Amino acid sequence: MRFVTFQLGQETKLGVVNEEVTEVIDLQRAQSAKEVKLLPTSMIEAITLGDRFIKDVNELLEWVELQENRNWVYQLNSEEVTLLAPIPRPPKNIFCLGKNYAAHALEMGSADEIPKHPMVFTKAATSVNGPFADIWNHSDITSALDYEGELAVVIGKKGSKISKEEAFDYVFGYTMINDITARDLQKRHKQFFLGKSLDTACPMGPFIAYKSLIIDPNNLHIETRVNGEVRQSANTEQLIFDIPTIISTISQGTTLEPGDVIATGTPAGVGEGFTPPRYLKANDIVEIHVEGLGWLRNKIIESSNRL
Amino acid sequence: MRFVTFQLGQETKLGVVNEEVTEVIDLQRAQSAKEVKLLPTSMIEAITLGDRFIKDVNELLEWVELQENRNWVYQLNSEEVTLLAPIPRPPKNIFCLGKNYAAHALEMGSADEIPKHPMVFTKAATSVNGPFADIWNHSDITSALDYEGELAVVIGKKGSKISKEEAFDYVFGYTMINDITARDLQKRHKQFFLGKSLDTACPMGPFIAYKSLIIDPNNLHIETRVNGEVRQSANTEQLIFDIPTIISTISQGTTLEPGDVIATGTPAGVGEGFTPPRYLKANDIVEIHVEGLGWLRNKIIESSNRL
Repeated sequence: MRFVTFQLGQETKLGVVNEEVTEVIDLQRAQSAKEVKLLPTSMIEAITLGDRFIKDVNELLEWVELQENRNWVYQLNSEEVTLLAPIPRPPKNIFCLGKNYAAHALEMGSADEIPKHPMVFTKAATSVNGPFADIWNHSDITSALDYEGELAVVIGKKGSKISKEEAFDYVFGYTMINDITARDLQKRHKQFFLGKSLDTACPMGPFIAYKSLIIDPNNLHIETRVNGEVRQSANTEQLIFDIPTIISTISQGTTLEPGDVIATGTPAGVGEGFTPPRYLKANDIVEIHVEGLGWLRNKIIESSNRL
Repeated sequence: MRFVTFQLGQETKLGVVNEEVTEVIDLQRAQSAKEVKLLPTSMIEAITLGDRFIKDVNELLEWVELQENRNWVYQLNSEEVTLLAPIPRPPKNIFCLGKNYAAHALEMGSADEIPKHPMVFTKAATSVNGPFADIWNHSDITSALDYEGELAVVIGKKGSKISKEEAFDYVFGYTMINDITARDLQKRHKQFFLGKSLDTACPMGPFIAYKSLIIDPNNLHIETRVNGEVRQSANTEQLIFDIPTIISTISQGTTLEPGDVIATGTPAGVGEGFTPPRYLKANDIVEIHVEGLGWLRNKIIESSNRL
């Protein structure tokens, strides 16, 4: 199942999308047609319920299959429906891995940049943005806005001191983020946080694929395009620290919680890696694809034009 | 006014403490005695209400003064009352300034370590700990646990692109944190986050002093003691980047929200600065004091002894 958070008029709702991300089933509407009330209304609640939520949704969708009525289904290209980030407000900052693909570490400097231990920083929870929403260029404070396509892991249950062997038991599913980065701020302020935490700088989605859909997250094609040109093309098997290692390392001292999002790092091909650098400009379209997780598609806009 | 979050039996409550932090007024209990219901039940809600909350509390406390009855007052040394961190769960990770006192930057390396721009990293929201609670030594993953006494600013209202001149309008009040750091993890993982985010590694409190109590936050004595020995003794006037600069810098690209906590950095005298280093051991008592903000007092305990 592919879970989404979507806006319908003024309401924020939980839904399930088809593989092509062309239509969404409004779970609340379907369950009220079925005259049951089991499902939570937010993604964090859903994730926290875990297996019980999955079982309830499965039963609802089996019932839905048998109905002729489809008035709980919305087309995603309609004006009234907008996909939001699947977790519009994570319970804390997004965890991010730095330089977790060797070829990217090399393009950012030299072989010395390849980390020997996972490098973890965060993006402010306020930076989360919709999968097709505009990204502000923040041209008043940066002239070096860059893209970073990433596979992200969504944690399913609270845990600490998680072993690598049991790590996948703590995963709810997978999504993508674009770890938009102001390279000049990242360098100027030394620690990565400020350059990574601009408002709108964390497009997420378009859906969370429940873990059963992704057979091997450590072997997924990942690709980023700018205005149609392929800039990043790699496979998650190239991760220096794989998903079990990441989950185990963080959780040794820091408790993980349902709804926590961990972005696993970006492969080679960022704008900073070109000579001269190819930073993002207003009106650029950035598209990110990870096998099985659909597409993120965001336009860069001049911040001063924002509402 | 000095605001606290406290636990009474199984309930988490909002209160006001006296300057000596010996007794707490249970605001909900007092207002139900007065037969009004105006006040929120959590610190984040209170901060978000801002001026209206302050006005309502002031009126309640004036009424309280006139009463003979004092059954809404609890002694803080009683078994049934425990002070929690004033914000037990901040809306996102704690913002922290790195190397924001020159003498501390020097003890951590050389003059090259003195930042030219604010260095900002975060501590996981899960690391928050009570003002008198135990700190786990995490002896299975670190042998270099260190203390960092810090003045912290609590943001009062949502804002972005805040100028230095208007920065104090966005402050609700002040508190302290102990930015407990695993130096070995901090170095091994390059970015500071993991070494700063251990569970229990962010004692906070004991109260939030409303901003009217602190005439000049840029001129406060700050002191840290380990087992009674003074280790850090400085003044916030030595901050390289003062509070308006910090708020203005972060908010240029990242929206600040009510209840956000910004730790302003630690002065010289951390354990890492001694030769040989003087890291924290089980049973050590760390005390932090900032003028007008009371004392934080936490014991280091062997993690394997925790419940």
